[in-house]
Amino acid sequence: MKKSLCRFLMGCLVWGAACNPAPSPHWTADLAIEGATILTMDPSRALYAPGTLLIKDGAILALGPQDSLAGQYVATRRLQAEGQLVLPGLINTHCHAAMVLFRGLADDLALQDWLQFYIWPAEAEFIDSLSVRVGTQLAMAEMIRGGITTFNDMYFYMDEVARAAKAAGMRAVIAEGLLDFPVPGSPNPEQGLARTRRLLEGYQNDPLITVAVGPHAPYSCSSGLLQQADSLARRWEAPLHIHLSETRTELADIARPYGGLSPPAYLDSLGLLGPRTIGAHGVWLSPADIELLAARQVGISHNPESNMKLASGVAPLVALRQAGVKLGLGTDGAASNNNLDLWQEMNTAAKLQKVHLEDPAAMEAYAILLMATRGGAQLLGLDQQVGSLEVGKRADLQIVDLQGPHAHPIYNLYSQVVYALRAGDVRTVIIDGRLVMEDRQLLTLDEASIFRQVDSLAGHIREKLLAP
Amino acid sequence: MKKSLCRFLMGCLVWGAACNPAPSPHWTADLAIEGATILTMDPSRALYAPGTLLIKDGAILALGPQDSLAGQYVATRRLQAEGQLVLPGLINTHCHAAMVLFRGLADDLALQDWLQFYIWPAEAEFIDSLSVRVGTQLAMAEMIRGGITTFNDMYFYMDEVARAAKAAGMRAVIAEGLLDFPVPGSPNPEQGLARTRRLLEGYQNDPLITVAVGPHAPYSCSSGLLQQADSLARRWEAPLHIHLSETRTELADIARPYGGLSPPAYLDSLGLLGPRTIGAHGVWLSPADIELLAARQVGISHNPESNMKLASGVAPLVALRQAGVKLGLGTDGAASNNNLDLWQEMNTAAKLQKVHLEDPAAMEAYAILLMATRGGAQLLGLDQQVGSLEVGKRADLQIVDLQGPHAHPIYNLYSQVVYALRAGDVRTVIIDGRLVMEDRQLLTLDEASIFRQVDSLAGHIREKLLAP
Repeated sequence: MKKSLCRFLMGCLVWGAACNPAPSPHWTADLAIEGATILTMDPSRALYAPGTLLIKDGAILALGPQDSLAGQYVATRRLQAEGQLVLPGLINTHCHAAMVLFRGLADDLALQDWLQFYIWPAEAEFIDSLSVRVGTQLAMAEMIRGGITTFNDMYFYMDEVARAAKAAGMRAVIAEGLLDFPVPGSPNPEQGLARTRRLLEGYQNDPLITVAVGPHAPYSCSSGLLQQADSLARRWEAPLHIHLSETRTELADIARPYGGLSPPAYLDSLGLLGPRTIGAHGVWLSPADIELLAARQVGISHNPESNMKLASGVAPLVALRQAGVKLGLGTDGAASNNNLDLWQEMNTAAKLQKVHLEDPAAMEAYAILLMATRGGAQLLGLDQQVGSLEVGKRADLQIVDLQGPHAHPIYNLYSQVVYALRAGDVRTVIIDGRLVMEDRQLLTLDEASIFRQVDSLAGHIREKLLAP
Repeated sequence: MKKSLCRFLMGCLVWGAACNPAPSPHWTADLAIEGATILTMDPSRALYAPGTLLIKDGAILALGPQDSLAGQYVATRRLQAEGQLVLPGLINTHCHAAMVLFRGLADDLALQDWLQFYIWPAEAEFIDSLSVRVGTQLAMAEMIRGGITTFNDMYFYMDEVARAAKAAGMRAVIAEGLLDFPVPGSPNPEQGLARTRRLLEGYQNDPLITVAVGPHAPYSCSSGLLQQADSLARRWEAPLHIHLSETRTELADIARPYGGLSPPAYLDSLGLLGPRTIGAHGVWLSPADIELLAARQVGISHNPESNMKLASGVAPLVALRQAGVKLGLGTDGAASNNNLDLWQEMNTAAKLQKVHLEDPAAMEAYAILLMATRGGAQLLGLDQQVGSLEVGKRADLQIVDLQGPHAHPIYNLYSQVVYALRAGDVRTVIIDGRLVMEDRQLLTLDEASIFRQVDSLAGHIREKLLAP
């Protein structure tokens, strides 16, 4: 009697266990980042300390306070990030990546001398598909090391840039620079437009590469070329990337032939101002210009270190912000910076406005970091995919050390990011869910090889342009 | 016959060797730094690529091109620095080191609110001998990591600062802040003067510590206190460290009671302007002020990031330089920066002048680096000992990596230092011939312990001042 009762009870237990298995995990992730303080930069300013972030198929599957997610998931790989900071990857909204090849080539000169005697001769002689490939790789190595996960590039041989970016796993918006006169890769603007069309066709729906149309500037393109560029951008719903009101000279150069119009007003007269237009610099903007940009939903890439180094001026950043103009942060080319360090750019942007406006409360730290993340994504039309850490967005993020003396103490994380932390604090970078740098080891770029090629090329440039 | 001939010839050889021993080395060094590119920052702008630098008894014994010194020395220790850069240690000519404890405490506020609701309450409550010791240690860890080898500090409990600096092996000029009203450590200025006297007596002829007299500012000290400070400085031939013309408000605050005098003119009327006077900031200087400073051989510490962050203004750096005023570069306190990074300060100083003067050729890279090295040494009266790498000077230097992508390519080393390289590139620091950091390991400061103490103190500060 007892024996069969036991067996019966045992049977019940087994049956019970089979019908009520341990609850299956809520989430199954490829990668779980654990233990870090997470600054999401989402519209609610959500911050998790500590938090957990789960990545699946390149997107953010879940994120939230560590306690809430504990025990709710399994992950193929767990990345321990205790004591570290997780942020969205930074977005460099205006650069000429391959110009790293000319970093420091000729500084501290008057602008016209710099361009005429160094930059233009260097480009004419040395910019080809190979040097653009290698230069872009060097630039990406630098950018990834500094936590930049998306860059908005305007240069030449952009087919090489696209290929290099995809191989490195970097997100990029690319535009072949269109100008009236011959440039590397395009002896005339029709060639530039043809290159652009091929890129638009080739990279439709590409997960990492967005092709933009890049008429260089209002003063370097005929109105006909500007309109062709605009038509092409409209047909493809592509961003339009253009230098805008960068220098005082540009204002005069446009006003003269175009009946006193400002560069934005002139572009508007041709139909180029719209929600997909990205204006680079926007330094010399009148209140009327700012109103016009806001009305047309044009965005501006603010590039303070370049503006300072070339003595272009100080952009009306606060007024642009107040008018609701989309704003991003850019390094411009390394020949006028001279690095591609968006952390330094953030620090400079905040301080330049404070001293310019005589207001220590201008452009608070959070607003600056917003420009470098979600704001930049909005400017590039990528805010559905990136710019903040939110469920469903692509997993573009950086993990930052808080171990140097300059990281102690911390009272306000946003303040620490903008005024104390540095590019060198970035240890790990993930783009579209893929590790591109881990513990400061680049995983998708061969630095030693890149350095060898760059230094060799620089030797030729030095001989040609700098020999006594 | 043959046997004795052989013996004879052998004998001749041995005798020959004994009379003509291998030449003894020209130099016997404690430490030899080999293989690096050396930027001496000496008046002839000597640069050795590659070069050798020999250190003996804390001083530079020899330096020059690698080929010239090869085989000419023996060294107890040889440091291989191939592919790296050797520079003089940087000199931070104005800071309040222990204020790192308030780093990021309250940013982006109007100046008066910041001081009145955060800084002054924090100092009143939390600045004592222990917190100054720990805060200074944190500051020194940060400064050494960024290649700073000398700092000019004005704060409170400077006996703690001196002890901490000596223990860490850092060179420092220290001044107890003297003000009319009670400050940490000195309930009245007489106490502050007494502290200063004790320091002057205690650190006479100290190899690392120079005691200065530190009347805080023209507006925070009575004319009586200013004159007492000046007498003390003269008696001891000590530097006099004072904030000068930092804000527009200061001008009004001095002009009103002193018959329209500018702060420099007012100080001059009291006899405070002279070759040992170090003015911090010097933002609001008229042409007449600049002439006066030059005539009195007063020097200025230029602190651009602080001036920008607090919206104080832009100092007339180029005019000061043209007038021959001694110039150094300073970080100010970390609560208005928010790091103690003199590399960032150099980059900012150059760019701020260019945009302010609308001149991209203003303050070329070499001139900026000079301010941060030999110029700063001159400002502090230490140029016989440090500031450049020259035979006979003390061995204060930094060894810098050139391995990051931002270090490629290099066309001009001075330009690379100011516009592309960073504090994080510093790998090894030597002060007075002693290794204080090697391959990024601090040798004289226990970071883990310092961080623990700082974070604990910050917890109390946070509770007291930031709780909702």
